[in-house]
Amino acid sequence: MGKNKMHTHSRHYEEENEWGCANWFEYTVVVVFSSVLLLGALALTLFWVIYYRDGFAWRDDVSKQFNLHPVLMVAGFITFSGFSVLLYRICRCCRRIYVKLLHTIFHALAIPCVAIGFLAVLDSHNLAEPPIPNFYSIHSWLGLVTMGLFVIQFVIGFFSFLVLLCCEGATAAFRAALVPIHASFGLTTFVLAVASCLTGLTEKVIFTLGNAYSSWPEEGIVVNTLAMVLVALAILVSFAVRSPVLHSNTKVYVTERL
Amino acid sequence: MGKNKMHTHSRHYEEENEWGCANWFEYTVVVVFSSVLLLGALALTLFWVIYYRDGFAWRDDVSKQFNLHPVLMVAGFITFSGFSVLLYRICRCCRRIYVKLLHTIFHALAIPCVAIGFLAVLDSHNLAEPPIPNFYSIHSWLGLVTMGLFVIQFVIGFFSFLVLLCCEGATAAFRAALVPIHASFGLTTFVLAVASCLTGLTEKVIFTLGNAYSSWPEEGIVVNTLAMVLVALAILVSFAVRSPVLHSNTKVYVTERL
Repeated sequence: MGKNKMHTHSRHYEEENEWGCANWFEYTVVVVFSSVLLLGALALTLFWVIYYRDGFAWRDDVSKQFNLHPVLMVAGFITFSGFSVLLYRICRCCRRIYVKLLHTIFHALAIPCVAIGFLAVLDSHNLAEPPIPNFYSIHSWLGLVTMGLFVIQFVIGFFSFLVLLCCEGATAAFRAALVPIHASFGLTTFVLAVASCLTGLTEKVIFTLGNAYSSWPEEGIVVNTLAMVLVALAILVSFAVRSPVLHSNTKVYVTERL
Repeated sequence: MGKNKMHTHSRHYEEENEWGCANWFEYTVVVVFSSVLLLGALALTLFWVIYYRDGFAWRDDVSKQFNLHPVLMVAGFITFSGFSVLLYRICRCCRRIYVKLLHTIFHALAIPCVAIGFLAVLDSHNLAEPPIPNFYSIHSWLGLVTMGLFVIQFVIGFFSFLVLLCCEGATAAFRAALVPIHASFGLTTFVLAVASCLTGLTEKVIFTLGNAYSSWPEEGIVVNTLAMVLVALAILVSFAVRSPVLHSNTKVYVTERL
């Protein structure tokens, strides 16, 4: 690992091969486990909503329209964003610009999910009889903060790490300085998204199951399990981003020239 | 900052004085802001519980006994634990062993808070008419995970960083290797504690206010504000623990000999 830290562009691929057994073990465990949980969270949300909450609809059935909200938010903020963050740890041999572009594409895919998910809950509140007020709960406040941070990160990231490449020499120092800030705020956004999901699931399960929740119904256990998967993801993704082993060549990935 | 990273024991105090304006600014902002929020979270919880929920009692009034739960959990898991973590960033000139001992004392103070807080909620559930089941919700699962991690961290930290000092030469390498793991799991515990609080507050505010919550009552806004303070604390404490500026001499603090 000590050697990895000192890599230069020309020595990069040689050192990649010098990774020891322990490093590959850590890499495999984190990448495989995170991927399984990222897909598992989405699968579990889909299962919960389709099996227990009667699936989806648009404005003709607002309670089913609401069901789009958890699924799309988990898809956008957890699965797509999670893979997008992990890309910098998963792809060790691709050209860096491809990783950057994939990172942008995954986050760009999250945008319609989040937007439609947001619209779905607004509609299901406004079109309900009687209408349900918006933005009064801890979940909604947290969700707004998370969405705000997501947008700021996307816009700043897009302009700084892609658009500014047009004059790459002049902006290299600026981009290099921005990398740790972008990474920290990205991780913050992901953990906030998990916290938003946890409060949202708590709200939803109490509103729909009421007192039955306390008698350990199947649906309650499914929702609680989903919550635990999300917590495990927050821990694993934070670990992946912070781990010095997996981190070893990130700076090169993000700040190097095209 | 580059220089700070290279410190040796003998050069330590000189370099301390070399800290520039920006470093002191970051230090002051993080320390002052975190301290205000750590005390603010406890004050806000006390205000909420005393002003809106009629204060405290023991077994003669189980609904008031419940009120001990949020206050003691915030005191133990947030205020005491938060200051305990921040001590390594606040105290820049004390002898390291004092910081270690203070870190242990603050965490030890959190133990009775958490234990009585846990007992209060168990009692208020079991003695209620009819009794309320335990451990069925996302909040309780999260809380149990957080308490488990807290106990593991305390026991391992106590033995590794204090008891093992009795044969310090032989254990120095082990202790040094444990520092980043202890710090990571400590931060994880703190963020999990915040997530537990957020789900707990969401539960409590829905159970007590019901539909009135959506019409923006004063109490709802107070609880939501408390939740936002806790989120800000999770971000600030994570930043303080990870910041390379504030981090510059931590390794020395924890791994050096007595």
